Amino acid sequence: MGKIFAERTPVDEAIRQISRSEISRVGKESVEIFQACGRILAEDVIAKWDVPHFDRSAMDGYAVRAEDTFGASPTNPVILRLVGEVDIGEKPCCIERGKAVRVSTGSALPEGANAVVMLEYAKEIEGSVEIYRSVTPWENVSKRGEDVRMGEVVLRKGEILQPQDVGVLASLGYSEVEVIRRPKVAVIATGNELIEVGMNPEVGRVVNSNSPMLCCAIREMGCEPVYMGIVEDEFGKLRDAVSKALSTDAVIVTGGTSVGKRDLVPEVVEEMGEIIFHGVSMKPGMPTGFGVIEGKPVLLLPGFPVACILAFYTFFPEILAKLTGVRVVAKRGEKVRARLSRRIPSQPGVRTFARVVVRNGIASPVRTSGSGILTSMVKANGIVVVPEEKEGFEEGELVEVTLIRDLVEVL
Amino acid sequence: MGKIFAERTPVDEAIRQISRSEISRVGKESVEIFQACGRILAEDVIAKWDVPHFDRSAMDGYAVRAEDTFGASPTNPVILRLVGEVDIGEKPCCIERGKAVRVSTGSALPEGANAVVMLEYAKEIEGSVEIYRSVTPWENVSKRGEDVRMGEVVLRKGEILQPQDVGVLASLGYSEVEVIRRPKVAVIATGNELIEVGMNPEVGRVVNSNSPMLCCAIREMGCEPVYMGIVEDEFGKLRDAVSKALSTDAVIVTGGTSVGKRDLVPEVVEEMGEIIFHGVSMKPGMPTGFGVIEGKPVLLLPGFPVACILAFYTFFPEILAKLTGVRVVAKRGEKVRARLSRRIPSQPGVRTFARVVVRNGIASPVRTSGSGILTSMVKANGIVVVPEEKEGFEEGELVEVTLIRDLVEVL
Repeated sequence: MGKIFAERTPVDEAIRQISRSEISRVGKESVEIFQACGRILAEDVIAKWDVPHFDRSAMDGYAVRAEDTFGASPTNPVILRLVGEVDIGEKPCCIERGKAVRVSTGSALPEGANAVVMLEYAKEIEGSVEIYRSVTPWENVSKRGEDVRMGEVVLRKGEILQPQDVGVLASLGYSEVEVIRRPKVAVIATGNELIEVGMNPEVGRVVNSNSPMLCCAIREMGCEPVYMGIVEDEFGKLRDAVSKALSTDAVIVTGGTSVGKRDLVPEVVEEMGEIIFHGVSMKPGMPTGFGVIEGKPVLLLPGFPVACILAFYTFFPEILAKLTGVRVVAKRGEKVRARLSRRIPSQPGVRTFARVVVRNGIASPVRTSGSGILTSMVKANGIVVVPEEKEGFEEGELVEVTLIRDLVEVL
Repeated sequence: MGKIFAERTPVDEAIRQISRSEISRVGKESVEIFQACGRILAEDVIAKWDVPHFDRSAMDGYAVRAEDTFGASPTNPVILRLVGEVDIGEKPCCIERGKAVRVSTGSALPEGANAVVMLEYAKEIEGSVEIYRSVTPWENVSKRGEDVRMGEVVLRKGEILQPQDVGVLASLGYSEVEVIRRPKVAVIATGNELIEVGMNPEVGRVVNSNSPMLCCAIREMGCEPVYMGIVEDEFGKLRDAVSKALSTDAVIVTGGTSVGKRDLVPEVVEEMGEIIFHGVSMKPGMPTGFGVIEGKPVLLLPGFPVACILAFYTFFPEILAKLTGVRVVAKRGEKVRARLSRRIPSQPGVRTFARVVVRNGIASPVRTSGSGILTSMVKANGIVVVPEEKEGFEEGELVEVTLIRDLVEVL
């Protein structure tokens, strides 16, 4: 074993070796969307219907046939008969030539209508409505399918579901969704000095603190920790414990990874499978090792607690990427700097939150009109905040973008 | 209501108004440490015993009486009788004058011994050991209580438990810990156009997508969402729903917060308690409102989904701070820049992870010797990574610090 330690692997090379190793992917499962946040999409999500799924008024006003309003002006208004109202949520009736129906933002457009005259350009007078301005066909209307067409892919396999995605899934008729199963990660602690959590140590013994620490870190990374208890520094017992742990998706052993007489874990892994590296050029964390047994990754972490947790955070993310097929490159909430592809306007005194798509250092503001609600929520990956004292940001300006979704690379 | 909207509250002032409002704190509960990560400590954690709780060898070598080694040198070695070995985890015997015992790093020191001679300065010869270098009393020994004294406060009330804290809790004999209960947050959706998740909408209706979105966001923030369903835009029904929701710790209503005839939620809250603000200078999100009923915070979010989620992330963190008594000022994983209070050395070719305490723009490296393991884990709040090509960072150098714990402000 001394020989192996003589050649310590650089950290980046060790990560590359993990990424090149043959590791079995975990399968998928179905979860309710209320529980789906943070989970990885296992399949493309397609729209079950058009969005909007009916022609919808984008303004408070009057649904009309656009043709009826042509030529209308304040001095020469068109007068239409007011034949009713479509409230939000109501199923509309229909209108004919010369008629109008009162609508609100979000109301379904009556059959026969093809435009909405805004409230401010009309006046109700005794069962009729005076129209002061003409509208073109489909003006102030969000047309059926304008945002998303039935059958269109709205979220791609590999995306990590954010709260806004869950909203979009609900809008599209999903109550459940297929996601990657949470990898099960076994945690074995080895060391003759260790006693279980909650016990009082005699002289010479210490509490196994690495296992609860790792179980918490594993759970935080979206996996399911499986605590396998403490195993003595004895070849056969270690082999049995690792063998049992192979029923999970990945195995972590803490302790016994150095080059002393009690450091048997690398030999156990070598016998059962293959050691990929053992000994890394990092401090603390040098005795870290990694192997593969029957397609299952086995991470060997030092017993020294600081080294243990640092090496975990250094190498486990790549193991997780191999298990799930998705590598996280940036986390929601991270801030990046990018150049604006076009101006973001803002009123002075108002804090404006502009959705942008940031890619290769360029932030492109996304359409924020009512009709693009759903797609803008899944396409935007960042927010640019324009503070109250500014009238916006200029094209080409360097701005701070806060990511509103995890950025991923699908393997 | 139009009057209220005429005076829109600036975002920062609205947050201040939340922070000044009278909101009931949630209580505490006991959780197993394996499940404690991310939870807020409800009480100071004190050490149940000294750490280390026995005099411990800090090196592989020979436990001796320091006095016996005085004057030893390579040319004039001291010869001690080797009377045994203390393995890691074993209860040690004792030694007398002129004797030595083989020990490993982490072994308990035999009674009578007060120092450890490192392996490289000694040689075993036929039942004896030649010592080539003198040691001073307690050299290469981590003394009992050197890191932490029994009864000392190790983690303070209000800290958010990180994986490393869980390790420390285990080391100190805790298997459970008192934490702030997860706040229960009720989610009510209002709007006559809404139908439940999973149903197929008729013309005019849309799926209630804000509720699953908010429930996910609430859960991600460490709270327990309680979905209360869809309520019609009707004063009495809204009042009944809010009243029922007051059995939780906080209430969120989405929709019905604007100034139209169906926007009844602000009036309902005003009747049952007090509206603190309604109408905020933000875009989107302007119709956001906030009130308090019987000490329970009530957040009124716009029905427009983008505005809904943005306003949630803008105002809910301060509500959560009021409920728990702890305001998060920075999250683990965030990067900050700071000046080093002293040099961090590193070997070329090795990636060094140095623990630091960062405060007011100054990063102070913490003691990383074996004896300070436990305290260094809870005192450090950041890591500075020295890359392979550098021989360290100099005192006064500006470095990037990655936070390894959430930074909090206890209210």
